[in-house]
Amino acid sequence: MTRQIDPEELAPAIAQGDRRALARAITLVESTRPDHRMAARALLARLPSRPAMRLGLTGTPGVGKSSFIEAFGMHLVQGGHRVAVLAVDPSSARTGGAILGDKTRMPQLARAANAFIRPSPARASLGGVARRTREAIALVEAAGYDIVLVETVGVGQSETMVAEMTDLFVLLIAPAGGDDLQGVKRGIMELADLILVTKADGALAETAERTAGDYRAALGLMRPRADALSAAPEVLTVSAHEGGRIAEVWQRISTLVAARTVSGLLDEQRRAQAVSALWSEIGAELMARFRADPAVAADTPAIIAALRTGALAPDEAAARLIDRHLGHARSRAGG
Amino acid sequence: MTRQIDPEELAPAIAQGDRRALARAITLVESTRPDHRMAARALLARLPSRPAMRLGLTGTPGVGKSSFIEAFGMHLVQGGHRVAVLAVDPSSARTGGAILGDKTRMPQLARAANAFIRPSPARASLGGVARRTREAIALVEAAGYDIVLVETVGVGQSETMVAEMTDLFVLLIAPAGGDDLQGVKRGIMELADLILVTKADGALAETAERTAGDYRAALGLMRPRADALSAAPEVLTVSAHEGGRIAEVWQRISTLVAARTVSGLLDEQRRAQAVSALWSEIGAELMARFRADPAVAADTPAIIAALRTGALAPDEAAARLIDRHLGHARSRAGG
Repeated sequence: MTRQIDPEELAPAIAQGDRRALARAITLVESTRPDHRMAARALLARLPSRPAMRLGLTGTPGVGKSSFIEAFGMHLVQGGHRVAVLAVDPSSARTGGAILGDKTRMPQLARAANAFIRPSPARASLGGVARRTREAIALVEAAGYDIVLVETVGVGQSETMVAEMTDLFVLLIAPAGGDDLQGVKRGIMELADLILVTKADGALAETAERTAGDYRAALGLMRPRADALSAAPEVLTVSAHEGGRIAEVWQRISTLVAARTVSGLLDEQRRAQAVSALWSEIGAELMARFRADPAVAADTPAIIAALRTGALAPDEAAARLIDRHLGHARSRAGG
Repeated sequence: MTRQIDPEELAPAIAQGDRRALARAITLVESTRPDHRMAARALLARLPSRPAMRLGLTGTPGVGKSSFIEAFGMHLVQGGHRVAVLAVDPSSARTGGAILGDKTRMPQLARAANAFIRPSPARASLGGVARRTREAIALVEAAGYDIVLVETVGVGQSETMVAEMTDLFVLLIAPAGGDDLQGVKRGIMELADLILVTKADGALAETAERTAGDYRAALGLMRPRADALSAAPEVLTVSAHEGGRIAEVWQRISTLVAARTVSGLLDEQRRAQAVSALWSEIGAELMARFRADPAVAADTPAIIAALRTGALAPDEAAARLIDRHLGHARSRAGG
């Protein structure tokens, strides 16, 4: 991003579907440089709001996520949709890699005129992942993509984050049983609106059906989360191969989303997500400023050490750092 | 609390096991009055740190939580332990009631010399529940109780909060199947270190065993959470009646805690909990101050309204409120 960004130029180009302008805009919202942030805010304010269907998607490596997205995305594109795939991989901030959304994972979709694939940024700041993703969703929506797939690799809290910014959250599970069973990370099942057991073809077809049955039974023991839109997530089997029920999965998803749209639940969920995003963004920003305060940064190591030995209780430690922060802010303002 | 609180007087009384002093001290840490907060901080700083075994306990109403705590607590007391029961019920902040920890629920334990039962405060401020509970734990520990049971009714986020301040988290489930099955709230199973199916006696004995088997199978489909100390939670059946395996449950719990103590995992978990409590306490305090800022409070309704209609994106809304807060802080400091 060596060129000067002009929101007044970029906004109409994005709205007209210019892919290079869209790519540059996403790079812009990924940046944390203050002048880039200002340009990003100006750009987003100029763009039309065109909410698309937002689908979250998660599954551990090896589950067949890329094959599913490739097949599912191609089905949507062939049905006349414009599909954007965004990747969320907080781990790439550590590894420096951009393992998700890599275009070679989805060769057909990557070449499709009505599909846009955006890999996870190589060096996203961890705290900024939620904001970057929300803003990237707004950008692809403004560019006219009517279905946005937000995929995550399932590291740390990324699934919760993605579930909180999408309309429907889909969990992919590999067929397995007994010793081969890797199991779903605890806490993920509760986020799912729909569970898909992959690779339901050939030799694994029967195992996939059995795995689906096991998860259906397990889900029967849990109450839906209070804010869930559906009673309990459905469990379907799917295959990325020809005739592998991709159409059926899309049918289920669009029926679910349509029912929630008609009932008003989808709008209510989006409004609640927006308000919740407001407070988490503020919380993250206040905390970032707090930790960046030199007075706080200077005292933190000793406080943490005292906390770890038990010499200081968490609440006393918190009170001390806050006193330090406020005293420092006051003295800076006074001087 | 009309009398003046003198930490210098209260601290030795608590350390000597004076129950009335302990009760007054807990009332003090429950207060949000600034002078009470100062006295509470002074008091806590004067008390010895005597970490006890901290057990979290949750289960929906009707599961037999009171009967279990009564039987379990009496078993511990008879074994020479001193047992404190603290209740966390954020819902009582709304209803004004104090439904948990009510002494009439546990008539025997309430009369036992070596047991101390503290109901949930009638009007706890929701944000202050975590701090109140952590401080109450420190107080009962300083008073020499060597086993602290922190029970929660399972409203909102209270289980996560309790799991984050205890050594072991126990989930109680009622025996049931088919249409009678109420199911565990999604997201709770992942917190449990141990699951107990209650009422395993008489006509329900068989159902309880079957329920335990169902949950064992469901847990087999989930990977333990990354920070879990044990591979997967055990599922046991228990009855509060004579000979109902209370001794066996205590045996399991003490074995688990002992193993984790020896391996150093328990200490590591407590240190991690303390650091995590530090940052959440700071986050809660910063957010409380932010929302209490008159400039922020004045703008918030319009911002939320714009957010809900979609006229404003969450990140732009956050940026505006933060600008307002910082501008206001600056102008106050300058004027």
